Amino acid sequence: MDLEPILNARSVAIVGATKVPTKRGYQTIRALLDEGYEGAIYPVNPKETRIMGLKCYPAVAEIPGEVDVALVATPAKTVPAILEDCGKKGVKGAVILATGFGETGVEGKTLEKEILDVAGRNTIRLIGPNTSGMINLKENLNLMGLKGSPKGDIALLTQSGNMALTLITEAKLKSRKGFTYYVGVGNEADIRFHEYLEFFTQDSDTRAILMYVEGMRDGRKFLQQAYKTTKKKPIILLKSGRSATGKQSAGSHTGALAGMSRVAMGAFQRAGIVVIENSDELFPAAETLSSLPPIKNNKIAILADGGGHATIAADTLTDLGVEIPELERGTQEKLRSILPSGAAVRNPIDVAGGTDDNPAIFADCARTLLKDPNIGGLLIVGLFGGYGIRFAESLAWIEEDAAHQMGKMVKEKKKAIVVHSLYNSEKPHSLDLLRYYDIPVYGSLDVACKCIGVLAQYGRYLKSYHAVSNFVLKEGVKAKPEGQQIINAALQQKRSSLLESEAKQLLKLHGVAVPTDLLAKTAAEALDAAARIGGKVVLKIASPDILHKSDAKGVLLNLQGKEQVRKAFKEIITNAKAYRAEAEIEGVLVSPMAVKGVEVIIGTKIDDQFGPVIMYGLGGILVEIIKDVSFRVLPITRLSAKHMISETQSHPILDGIRGEAPYDKKALVNLLLTCSEIIESYPQIHEMDLNPVIVNHEGLSIVDARILLKCAPEGEKTGSAT
Amino acid sequence: MDLEPILNARSVAIVGATKVPTKRGYQTIRALLDEGYEGAIYPVNPKETRIMGLKCYPAVAEIPGEVDVALVATPAKTVPAILEDCGKKGVKGAVILATGFGETGVEGKTLEKEILDVAGRNTIRLIGPNTSGMINLKENLNLMGLKGSPKGDIALLTQSGNMALTLITEAKLKSRKGFTYYVGVGNEADIRFHEYLEFFTQDSDTRAILMYVEGMRDGRKFLQQAYKTTKKKPIILLKSGRSATGKQSAGSHTGALAGMSRVAMGAFQRAGIVVIENSDELFPAAETLSSLPPIKNNKIAILADGGGHATIAADTLTDLGVEIPELERGTQEKLRSILPSGAAVRNPIDVAGGTDDNPAIFADCARTLLKDPNIGGLLIVGLFGGYGIRFAESLAWIEEDAAHQMGKMVKEKKKAIVVHSLYNSEKPHSLDLLRYYDIPVYGSLDVACKCIGVLAQYGRYLKSYHAVSNFVLKEGVKAKPEGQQIINAALQQKRSSLLESEAKQLLKLHGVAVPTDLLAKTAAEALDAAARIGGKVVLKIASPDILHKSDAKGVLLNLQGKEQVRKAFKEIITNAKAYRAEAEIEGVLVSPMAVKGVEVIIGTKIDDQFGPVIMYGLGGILVEIIKDVSFRVLPITRLSAKHMISETQSHPILDGIRGEAPYDKKALVNLLLTCSEIIESYPQIHEMDLNPVIVNHEGLSIVDARILLKCAPEGEKTGSAT
Repeated sequence: MDLEPILNARSVAIVGATKVPTKRGYQTIRALLDEGYEGAIYPVNPKETRIMGLKCYPAVAEIPGEVDVALVATPAKTVPAILEDCGKKGVKGAVILATGFGETGVEGKTLEKEILDVAGRNTIRLIGPNTSGMINLKENLNLMGLKGSPKGDIALLTQSGNMALTLITEAKLKSRKGFTYYVGVGNEADIRFHEYLEFFTQDSDTRAILMYVEGMRDGRKFLQQAYKTTKKKPIILLKSGRSATGKQSAGSHTGALAGMSRVAMGAFQRAGIVVIENSDELFPAAETLSSLPPIKNNKIAILADGGGHATIAADTLTDLGVEIPELERGTQEKLRSILPSGAAVRNPIDVAGGTDDNPAIFADCARTLLKDPNIGGLLIVGLFGGYGIRFAESLAWIEEDAAHQMGKMVKEKKKAIVVHSLYNSEKPHSLDLLRYYDIPVYGSLDVACKCIGVLAQYGRYLKSYHAVSNFVLKEGVKAKPEGQQIINAALQQKRSSLLESEAKQLLKLHGVAVPTDLLAKTAAEALDAAARIGGKVVLKIASPDILHKSDAKGVLLNLQGKEQVRKAFKEIITNAKAYRAEAEIEGVLVSPMAVKGVEVIIGTKIDDQFGPVIMYGLGGILVEIIKDVSFRVLPITRLSAKHMISETQSHPILDGIRGEAPYDKKALVNLLLTCSEIIESYPQIHEMDLNPVIVNHEGLSIVDARILLKCAPEGEKTGSAT
Repeated sequence: MDLEPILNARSVAIVGATKVPTKRGYQTIRALLDEGYEGAIYPVNPKETRIMGLKCYPAVAEIPGEVDVALVATPAKTVPAILEDCGKKGVKGAVILATGFGETGVEGKTLEKEILDVAGRNTIRLIGPNTSGMINLKENLNLMGLKGSPKGDIALLTQSGNMALTLITEAKLKSRKGFTYYVGVGNEADIRFHEYLEFFTQDSDTRAILMYVEGMRDGRKFLQQAYKTTKKKPIILLKSGRSATGKQSAGSHTGALAGMSRVAMGAFQRAGIVVIENSDELFPAAETLSSLPPIKNNKIAILADGGGHATIAADTLTDLGVEIPELERGTQEKLRSILPSGAAVRNPIDVAGGTDDNPAIFADCARTLLKDPNIGGLLIVGLFGGYGIRFAESLAWIEEDAAHQMGKMVKEKKKAIVVHSLYNSEKPHSLDLLRYYDIPVYGSLDVACKCIGVLAQYGRYLKSYHAVSNFVLKEGVKAKPEGQQIINAALQQKRSSLLESEAKQLLKLHGVAVPTDLLAKTAAEALDAAARIGGKVVLKIASPDILHKSDAKGVLLNLQGKEQVRKAFKEIITNAKAYRAEAEIEGVLVSPMAVKGVEVIIGTKIDDQFGPVIMYGLGGILVEIIKDVSFRVLPITRLSAKHMISETQSHPILDGIRGEAPYDKKALVNLLLTCSEIIESYPQIHEMDLNPVIVNHEGLSIVDARILLKCAPEGEKTGSAT
């Protein structure tokens, strides 16, 4: 494991060590000493001989023992020389705190490239630059300066120092949880998100990985790793920088590519990552997911001591896609026997005052509910923990007893309980006891709902993940020699796109039934072609120099009879010459008119962060105005293709509305899969655009196909598939 | 003011007074005594002579002095007799705590009706039943039992006792704010939401009204009052019971009509109510709106001491529709002079460490930002308040100084500052100082963003409210005698709907150009009519017994030439007879074919809670599948009609896409207004359905119009307009 000697370093050099207490070169040594790091600590500063009782060295190369990691706490411009020095010593990794690199502009980018070069030559891996540092809490290896971070089983990976501070503070003040590692990724100049993720996945002390992300340098490798990670442990992630202003703010902050799109959010979720939108929910979600088993069947019970909280919880959980099923008759009867007659026992359960003088009833109800095979988890909302405060002091002990009972129940039944308590901020002992048993407690009803919600969400994912693609492109594996020839020929001719006929030929090679298009070089040939095709035909200009055929008035529809076809041929040639006098014209393509059906659009493009992605949508207004489209990172599986269709708002149209027969969704799924295969097969393809595709009751027809290649010569428009 | 003697009662009888400390009949007297209520307190219990030192009376009628309010703390079945007793005494109001009324089923509903009757006869107004009580904190008139609720300037109106407890607890633990009044509305059997709202609107000590609602008995009166209230003071409202399970839970809770629709949420917002979706944000929004002036120009600055928080805040505020404008050059220069060179000074402002050794810089930046005429308010995010904790203790005093400065600034500039602090839960003095100056502080970044967001939202509303309708229906004012005749004639014939020709005639009377429809009783008349109309025509069955003409195969389109018209006439008559042998057939309606255009649909119906509402949407798939529609409570203004169109996702279609000329939106706006006028004019109309309406480039054409009347005789289908 590449990062092992860095994140678990047994010896550290502090470059820029100092006696000034406000500086990181002081604070880090202080933290290492105070927190009991057992490895070797080597201050480095040519002007000092001893700092905090430790011998100080003029340079890293002068240190006698081995040095695993160097913390570099000096300004940006000094870093290249320091790394050379580290190289001489055989240092394995360096944590670069300084700002003034890629995030600041051209000069900074050059400097960042320089330190990457030096590090590469010296086989030093870099954390940062522009990072707040890293901590290995298991070994008290604290290279962040902030002392007293709580230990636990969550790995923390962020792109913002103050978000790290926020999350660490929250863990400390509001939970019994803590961290295995913290890493501030900074500019991701060398070590990338996916490498840290791989390391945390393998670390057996880490039960969950908590991430704050503004942008990523290699989204696809991250997805590939996340896909593997989430089978073993949950990833909880908040992504900011959605808005233009947020993006700008993130940009000035880390210099990373901020502002991931819907593509990213969707891809994260499909890799099993729990994506969080409200920062209040970020740590609690990690706390819950690292403490409790996922909910297996997406079904939970709500136990309340008042209607208002129950109603809000039911609304919120329904919005989160969690089911609140009616309880089995036996469960209802049992609850009926425990609770007073006014109680609601269907779910949500309202104790109707039944707990007022005996909060242990909560434990009795919880036991009954967790026994119900239909109930995967339990959310308790209301006053629990506060009975001793609100009603009578002696009730506090009964609450503590109930907490012990519920804690043991959770361990025994392996089903989750999450608690909302109005009295959480009063810190009653019973709530601390619940946390001791890994039952999370929140003062916010919304957060408690979200937390039981993410347990259900992760449970749903674990049931379905095997059907999700692993994001690995098998480049060229399914390429056809003829297909490769078509592309190579176009590239040799320095073309940035395939002719429509070539694009369709490529689709045909991969098994898509494309309409018979015939190339006519003369009007006579066009007449002949139209006769062979029969019925109404379409004529389209065929020219490597005319990509947007409609703009060139190079398409005429609905032609029937010799006279119309002859006239159309001449008109198209004339229009094409008028549009671009020097255009090389291969002729006119004669195709059958597509039969009526539903118009859809399929496109692929190369995303900056994730590589090839595919878009699908129902055509016309729905794509243009409503943007009712779905995205996937390629490659996709059959199930993904089905989901792409079913997650558009307008998909019921394909089932046939107003008594129409259903349209051929299977053909559409196959076409999406073929597009995925083609993109995997020919890495030279930059964009593909099938628009429109007419889906009929039996099959479909690709009316126009456009394929752009990667080596676009200058001056050629490449357009965009989305 | 009707509620004055109840909510400001100077004498109280406690019916069901007791010496048992766990009972409300004890707790209430305890609270009144302990909290210093200065009015008369009369315990009532035939079995006791003295309770807590107060003389106890066997009945209310036996009390010597005047009694303004009776708190009735006895079981449901005793309430009618107690109210008779109260009646004898001339009690003005009663607070009925008991459950077991309308919320429980038929028997409870009967009992609720009975107590309403008794109360009505005795001119007693009722709070509840099924209420947790009420408190007037100004007079220490505590009829809730819960002691120590904080005093302040927010009126609290809820439909759930534990939500009241939640909000009161939150105020106490996390703010310096409190309440003027608390009322639990319970079943709203007598006094309704709008009456309390009116009272709080007039109360000069109340600066904001905080509401938790599950359902309302008279939504329209509430809207009418809210419309007036929000011009004077803000209403902050959370509505639960959206989901089916939530609705069920709310139903068992208060028995009110839970589960308001999009209609309700939209109407609330248009009445200027700040609608809150997350319960965490409910009290903070009220705290902020009762403390600070609304933001006038929707533009705010974000001041941060770290990029992560700034990025998240920018995202969240952008989602909330608040602008984060670039700062004026002068402001940027001034900030540049205050902050270190690495700082971002555009907005969000990132101090880049500039405050680390001097947090007073926050006040300097705030002063500069509030001076910028383009900035309406300021959100500070990050560590403020924690510098003394995180960096050096002495910084705490500097933070306190900064707090004083910022507090004065807010008063002087009348611009809002809201603060997020990571150290809020540590309760540093500087943050308490900010609250002293009415600057709210939150530990949650999301909540802080929401709070500055609602100040901007309320500011936007106050600028635009005059354009919003006041929800008052002027019944009959614009009715036309001929229109009333059409309706009366139909009602006399015991019809539940108008004929299409009658419906169109009604529209025409109100100034809508409707196509010339000619009624043909014979094929010859149909031919004649078609010739007079010219061009292609439509034939439709005209029968008071056939409402759904298409179902009866009673519509034929696109007819031209004598042969087609003659054949169509016969076919329609035959089909109609086959569909309903006994149908009275008036003939066949001959209309011109609508020219091509965009299909829209307009409908009105009577909402259970809000009365007449109108729906608009672009037709076909967009309505059927995407549900891309907008609603308004009637009547509407011209601006509302424009908004109805512009808030549909698909509205750009009307502007013309792909180079088309724009469609006639003005005609569409006029038609919406006419529909509003017609519904106001003829209260006998139950539903109206114009579907489809074809909007052209110049005008529109109503293809079909259906009007249902209120007195539907049994067995007649009435359908639904939405």
